[in-house]
Amino acid sequence: MMFWKFLFCVRCLHVVSLAVINGSPETCPADISSGCGDDWEGEFFSGIPKIKYEGPSSKNPLAFKWYNAQEEILGKKMKDWMRFSVAFWHTFRGTGGDPFGAPTKMWPWEDGTNSVAMAKRRMRANFEFIDKLGVDLWCFHDRDIAPDGKTLEESNANLDEVVALAKELQGGKIHPLWGTAQLFMHPRYMHGAATSSELGVYAYGAAQVKKAMEVTHYLGGENYVFWGGREGYQTLLNTDMERELNHMARFFEAAVAYKKKIGFKGTLLIEPKPQEPTKHQYDWDAATAANFLRKYGLEGEFKLNIECNHATLSGHSCYHELETARINGLLGNIDANTGDPQIGWDTDQFLTDIAEATMVMLSVVRNGGIAPGGFNFDAKLRRESTDVEDLFIAHISGMDTLARGLRNVAKLIEDGSLAELVSKRYQSFDTELGALVEAGKADFELLEKKAMEWGEPKVPSAKQELAEMIFQSAL
Amino acid sequence: MMFWKFLFCVRCLHVVSLAVINGSPETCPADISSGCGDDWEGEFFSGIPKIKYEGPSSKNPLAFKWYNAQEEILGKKMKDWMRFSVAFWHTFRGTGGDPFGAPTKMWPWEDGTNSVAMAKRRMRANFEFIDKLGVDLWCFHDRDIAPDGKTLEESNANLDEVVALAKELQGGKIHPLWGTAQLFMHPRYMHGAATSSELGVYAYGAAQVKKAMEVTHYLGGENYVFWGGREGYQTLLNTDMERELNHMARFFEAAVAYKKKIGFKGTLLIEPKPQEPTKHQYDWDAATAANFLRKYGLEGEFKLNIECNHATLSGHSCYHELETARINGLLGNIDANTGDPQIGWDTDQFLTDIAEATMVMLSVVRNGGIAPGGFNFDAKLRRESTDVEDLFIAHISGMDTLARGLRNVAKLIEDGSLAELVSKRYQSFDTELGALVEAGKADFELLEKKAMEWGEPKVPSAKQELAEMIFQSAL
Amino acid sequence: MMFWKFLFCVRCLHVVSLAVINGSPETCPADISSGCGDDWEGEFFSGIPKIKYEGPSSKNPLAFKWYNAQEEILGKKMKDWMRFSVAFWHTFRGTGGDPFGAPTKMWPWEDGTNSVAMAKRRMRANFEFIDKLGVDLWCFHDRDIAPDGKTLEESNANLDEVVALAKELQGGKIHPLWGTAQLFMHPRYMHGAATSSELGVYAYGAAQVKKAMEVTHYLGGENYVFWGGREGYQTLLNTDMERELNHMARFFEAAVAYKKKIGFKGTLLIEPKPQEPTKHQYDWDAATAANFLRKYGLEGEFKLNIECNHATLSGHSCYHELETARINGLLGNIDANTGDPQIGWDTDQFLTDIAEATMVMLSVVRNGGIAPGGFNFDAKLRRESTDVEDLFIAHISGMDTLARGLRNVAKLIEDGSLAELVSKRYQSFDTELGALVEAGKADFELLEKKAMEWGEPKVPSAKQELAEMIFQSAL
Amino acid sequence: MMFWKFLFCVRCLHVVSLAVINGSPETCPADISSGCGDDWEGEFFSGIPKIKYEGPSSKNPLAFKWYNAQEEILGKKMKDWMRFSVAFWHTFRGTGGDPFGAPTKMWPWEDGTNSVAMAKRRMRANFEFIDKLGVDLWCFHDRDIAPDGKTLEESNANLDEVVALAKELQGGKIHPLWGTAQLFMHPRYMHGAATSSELGVYAYGAAQVKKAMEVTHYLGGENYVFWGGREGYQTLLNTDMERELNHMARFFEAAVAYKKKIGFKGTLLIEPKPQEPTKHQYDWDAATAANFLRKYGLEGEFKLNIECNHATLSGHSCYHELETARINGLLGNIDANTGDPQIGWDTDQFLTDIAEATMVMLSVVRNGGIAPGGFNFDAKLRRESTDVEDLFIAHISGMDTLARGLRNVAKLIEDGSLAELVSKRYQSFDTELGALVEAGKADFELLEKKAMEWGEPKVPSAKQELAEMIFQSAL
Repeated sequence: MMFWKFLFCVRCLHVVSLAVINGSPETCPADISSGCGDDWEGEFFSGIPKIKYEGPSSKNPLAFKWYNAQEEILGKKMKDWMRFSVAFWHTFRGTGGDPFGAPTKMWPWEDGTNSVAMAKRRMRANFEFIDKLGVDLWCFHDRDIAPDGKTLEESNANLDEVVALAKELQGGKIHPLWGTAQLFMHPRYMHGAATSSELGVYAYGAAQVKKAMEVTHYLGGENYVFWGGREGYQTLLNTDMERELNHMARFFEAAVAYKKKIGFKGTLLIEPKPQEPTKHQYDWDAATAANFLRKYGLEGEFKLNIECNHATLSGHSCYHELETARINGLLGNIDANTGDPQIGWDTDQFLTDIAEATMVMLSVVRNGGIAPGGFNFDAKLRRESTDVEDLFIAHISGMDTLARGLRNVAKLIEDGSLAELVSKRYQSFDTELGALVEAGKADFELLEKKAMEWGEPKVPSAKQELAEMIFQSAL
Repeated sequence: MMFWKFLFCVRCLHVVSLAVINGSPETCPADISSGCGDDWEGEFFSGIPKIKYEGPSSKNPLAFKWYNAQEEILGKKMKDWMRFSVAFWHTFRGTGGDPFGAPTKMWPWEDGTNSVAMAKRRMRANFEFIDKLGVDLWCFHDRDIAPDGKTLEESNANLDEVVALAKELQGGKIHPLWGTAQLFMHPRYMHGAATSSELGVYAYGAAQVKKAMEVTHYLGGENYVFWGGREGYQTLLNTDMERELNHMARFFEAAVAYKKKIGFKGTLLIEPKPQEPTKHQYDWDAATAANFLRKYGLEGEFKLNIECNHATLSGHSCYHELETARINGLLGNIDANTGDPQIGWDTDQFLTDIAEATMVMLSVVRNGGIAPGGFNFDAKLRRESTDVEDLFIAHISGMDTLARGLRNVAKLIEDGSLAELVSKRYQSFDTELGALVEAGKADFELLEKKAMEWGEPKVPSAKQELAEMIFQSAL
Repeated sequence: MMFWKFLFCVRCLHVVSLAVINGSPETCPADISSGCGDDWEGEFFSGIPKIKYEGPSSKNPLAFKWYNAQEEILGKKMKDWMRFSVAFWHTFRGTGGDPFGAPTKMWPWEDGTNSVAMAKRRMRANFEFIDKLGVDLWCFHDRDIAPDGKTLEESNANLDEVVALAKELQGGKIHPLWGTAQLFMHPRYMHGAATSSELGVYAYGAAQVKKAMEVTHYLGGENYVFWGGREGYQTLLNTDMERELNHMARFFEAAVAYKKKIGFKGTLLIEPKPQEPTKHQYDWDAATAANFLRKYGLEGEFKLNIECNHATLSGHSCYHELETARINGLLGNIDANTGDPQIGWDTDQFLTDIAEATMVMLSVVRNGGIAPGGFNFDAKLRRESTDVEDLFIAHISGMDTLARGLRNVAKLIEDGSLAELVSKRYQSFDTELGALVEAGKADFELLEKKAMEWGEPKVPSAKQELAEMIFQSAL
Repeated sequence: MMFWKFLFCVRCLHVVSLAVINGSPETCPADISSGCGDDWEGEFFSGIPKIKYEGPSSKNPLAFKWYNAQEEILGKKMKDWMRFSVAFWHTFRGTGGDPFGAPTKMWPWEDGTNSVAMAKRRMRANFEFIDKLGVDLWCFHDRDIAPDGKTLEESNANLDEVVALAKELQGGKIHPLWGTAQLFMHPRYMHGAATSSELGVYAYGAAQVKKAMEVTHYLGGENYVFWGGREGYQTLLNTDMERELNHMARFFEAAVAYKKKIGFKGTLLIEPKPQEPTKHQYDWDAATAANFLRKYGLEGEFKLNIECNHATLSGHSCYHELETARINGLLGNIDANTGDPQIGWDTDQFLTDIAEATMVMLSVVRNGGIAPGGFNFDAKLRRESTDVEDLFIAHISGMDTLARGLRNVAKLIEDGSLAELVSKRYQSFDTELGALVEAGKADFELLEKKAMEWGEPKVPSAKQELAEMIFQSAL
């Protein structure tokens, strides 16, 4: 039931009201006109200081209690383990709208338009936010940083103008963790982009990815992401799945070729998600995406961007998806968020669960870090959180939780008993026959002979409760 | 990620584009201006005939194959069993927007505004649709038939103007199955209405319900529905659930009192839904709603509006929820739709499953019909279905499926073997001791005495596979 | 696929093998015969010391790190807040069998029989376990402490013999948190007990409850529990749900009458569970059970036993179910366990999640404790955990986790900021009009008048992210 | 809570009671002893005739209403499309036990033992069942047709003895659709077989598969199946997933080598299932299994056995899994059953949903049939269905449902409008540029050029409601 509409003041293009007003809104109401204007100067977050580390005993919501960027843990600075990134779309384009409700967030710097001028002001807010939060990476979709134009050419021109400003504001110290093209919001993509039933849409999507890849490269982005929001189906009754998957492969091949052509060295990443908005997305989970890559010979060209909330929607724990990506050599990046275990859609909440964060960091540490990937906060404020400071509180809370996870991993590693428990479980394979098996040299006849020789095997306890006790003690 | 915005032409208030255009949209583009205007005359659905019954062999998508309104089945006309109603919001205000996508539907009669003039034109389309479909009931939310004003007074005036037209167009032959107030879309309701943490919102919601009840009464509505879209919570960490539930009870008591005061004889209905948009809705399912009503002494004043998709989201079959409502004396109305068994959110699809429809009709027939309730099509076109004729195809398909369900129930009843199987299962209670048990006169001592006398009881097969065979043979 | 069978040695009735052996197992294999005999003397858990509190820095798996029984927290000893109880069935009758696998656990004191002698030896093991763990409560089903006889009379005699020993072993210091009758395992209960379609089964169930209530009373049990394992249905196609629910009410009424007759003062508890083994259990969740109690006028006679794993299977958080029970005046007892958020059946794991434990304890503290109820460990070792010490590790881990939860609640209360955040949200109701609303004296006309007077209400942020930050900081 | 035990009469080894009896069961109770004996002669299913086709109007539960084996549909006999197979384990070893309940089924030919003699009698019952049902294929696990011995050698000898009888009873007209080794029931497999942490178990599993493959080959089996019931994990905390997956690959490689060595030409099949009994099974779904096969270079050696209930547990429709297998060239066999959409575990019900059966048959027809695979009824009677005739009713119902599905597919194909709707959707790719895209020859620069040339693409309706209407009309 999406029938909400904005109405803009016809004089100054300010939003008159979130509730649509019919009749003649010829005049701007006073309480709106004061807040807008292209000439916003100075701070956007005037009440918010630079966020500092104050330690676990601090009660200050605007301070880090566990994340201490320069502190060294397990041989690396925390900031280098984490590589935190701000997601432009949730932070600056999140409106609080949901399928049953209108936008609730009208940040004070917004003037109600989607103009290039507004886009540039918003970009300045973004860099102030990044600076105050103390990170140096950001992520974006093409269409959330610059408005659609009437034509593709005009859209590209808008993008160029905003990107030029972003480049300047990056100041050589900040750069994108990744960029991407938004191929799901516009009605033209309703049947997908690379898997649309319409050739014209396929071509349009290709053009959009081409441009997004160029600007990501220009801004010094370290990765480029594909989230196929509508690459999937609503019903197989009207779908030729095989043909659509073939198209998707052709599209990715072309992306690889273009990347090489322009000399972009960043990693290409696929972001699995099982469903929503479609009934079924083709990049369902890590294993499905890996199968796709292998089937089409693309496994050397892509890695995966694992999102915790997507993992749980597909029936897996986040840790499972991270480990699956890792052992397939595909762990490229993490979208740091969480879902609600009782909710069947993507809630994109900030991760505040310490146990989960510790599992996530276990995978990262085991992988030796995930650079050039990092942690992108693909998380949004709740619809009902409408204060500017909530943006900071949410990010600080998410960063602290993961930092705490890293500290817990360090404790687990120092303690050593969990790793020992695991390696002991498999010690029977650290033998001569075990080595033969692992080398693929133990055939069924040899194995049968051994089984008969040995009689009934002894099978020790799996010690799951002990493993859980050790794990929880480290939290 | 909801950052889509419309932009309206400043001259004529037509939508310039679904994609926001920045810059200076001072002039209306030609391809838009031609389609709008308050002066739309003649038919809205010009290519669509009045839908007729053509029987099961027809291949015509714009004909009924099973629904034959005047045909008598089980002692009643099909139309009187079904009491089909068109939902104004899905049919006329559904935009195709979803959490990841912009609207896809721009029906030709829409001019891109939310003006009263547009609301009136849309109302004319509604009655043409109702007429061509051959039904005589409709349902509405206050805010989908008339636009919000700048003040409550103005909103009420808008509503009065549109309702006056609706009354006229009803022409004494058509009337609302039910009306309701939309208390979830506007940002003011972000914490709920009757359960909002803000007293001002509680009062505003009360005022809105008061008005919606008045206009439902004025239009001859047979029921009034409460769907508490945001009556619930996102997290218990910030919620006083007990206080909120008490407020909800006070709100319902006031609604009952006002209903009596204005002489409205329609049934008040609560529509259970477990979650979405909230993590938890207070009217989770039929049993939860029944418990609430009993706790606060409201069980004589309300019935339930059961929605199949809500039933399955709460972990129950639709049939279970219907039967639970029925045996609690609370079956008031049915929102006829269906979900997807693998999807964890409300998809509001048209019901096309014959087995499900047969179960639904079993409950209805067992209840002796559900008048003054009926079947409201709380179902929407898929986002990707964008032809005007799709609106008809979807309704015809849904009506035919339920009609087929009714025909199957008639077959089951005529055959009699399923009912016989069930009554036979309980025949041991059709005895003297069984009667004592059922009258509450068999105490534990008597029962123990009998158990010792009888020894090990014989327990016959439940014959589930036979029951399923009989059921499926009737489809 | 359950086709596993035991085979017993025909001479001494010891289990020859977990794998069924065909042919002639006339002789007991040496490695079994040594372990059995009615004459087991001395310690059962000879390697296990009495479990002591050693504090958070201890690495000893057989010590408490957070649970310090005599320590006072929030004005009560930890043991009085927690009231921990050992569940006899999981601890002493859990076999590790699952729908795809045979038993894996053959504790050394087991002789492979289900004799009364074995039952008594097992009971001695139980009290040694309770003593070493340092608790003073236990829970049981009638049939897990004493074997079925050929007749009800014989079963009762078996039960009496074992219960007499238990009474002696309790030694005046230990007693049951609760007892119950097992009405789901025997084939006679395949269609339910109180809701069986067979009157003979209804009577048999009544006789069994009568006896179980008597022995619970005799042992000084503080509560009596009903878990209606098969009170529900597999399909509504063969079920008369209304008649079955009426029978269930009659059964509960008779239980209340009998309780009063024998002077048992313990609380009667219903344990909600949504499904498994049935498709639908009648005590689906707290609200469903509450509705049932109210419908049949039983709400003053019963409370609820909330199990965390059952809560999540019904689509709720455990905390939600606890709070729902609490505000309905029905919070009686807690089955302390947890499920797996990605698993759709009852895993009955020991709770080791700190955040969850803190939420659980928040409800308990808010309720002022739950005595005469307590925390029963309705949790089982994983099938693959086969060491005797695993029984201790699991319980210690579960007790420590809840103890840590209590300590966290104390921190939250001391800090005060979470409670303040919540009460502030509702402060608009702490006004004159708010009081009128809460007293049921604000009608729709008054509310409309106020809404018009006030204009658009101000709606503050819900501060969910801040609430989460405060909560997590206390962990 | 699995603490049920059988007790056998010490004289004749008959089951004395389903309820364990303690004391001295020295004498066989009369009501048991009469039913057993190795000398069972004549018919097992004496009241059941050979099942015949009587057409849709028949009310006879022991007749086919839609399955007419010799009737030709779409160019093939129905029996050749369906290739129905009886699953030995569910039909002859299903006990009705579940995690909360003891066995309920004691078929009259069972003597309570697991002896070789009993196994042979059961095998005779199997072939009578197959004959009366009118099929010519069956499936088995090694351990359900013959009992475990004390040693592997003895188990193999038992198997040989029973298999020799089966070969004789097959009579040249009947043969296995597939065989398999049961590697999940015995406690030794509690950590898995190929992925067990114990080398001895790995070897034992290999020996068991070796033998099972030999007997499948000997009996003329057309396929050999791997269902890795415990190849997965309960928690990643104690698991080295990478090492386990490597072991699984080595195991499969050895199986392939051995198959070739003995000249077995049947297809090797992997059966995906997401979880249960483990938290996570390594063959989660079709795509996961495909990824595994490709990663280890095994994709030419295996196909998949898709089970509908496993499909839905993994979050997919059955049709999705079938289509995924098909377009990966891996559709080998179908386990014909269904789950309950509201239940989170494997219910293995007989498929009686017509719409689902039609989707399943759509995949089969599109694949040109699935021989040498077929439809194995991996479905079991409900625990409460305890009549011998229920075995027939269930199979007839399942066969009729799929037969009805095939008839519906024929109607859909004859009508042609659904196929036309789909092919029309993609017609823009049936162009010169479309061909370039599909050939991988359209690079991003060409596509961008076209996108700019064409401007905003036209995107037609997906016509989902029309597709659903056409589909449902064919049912």
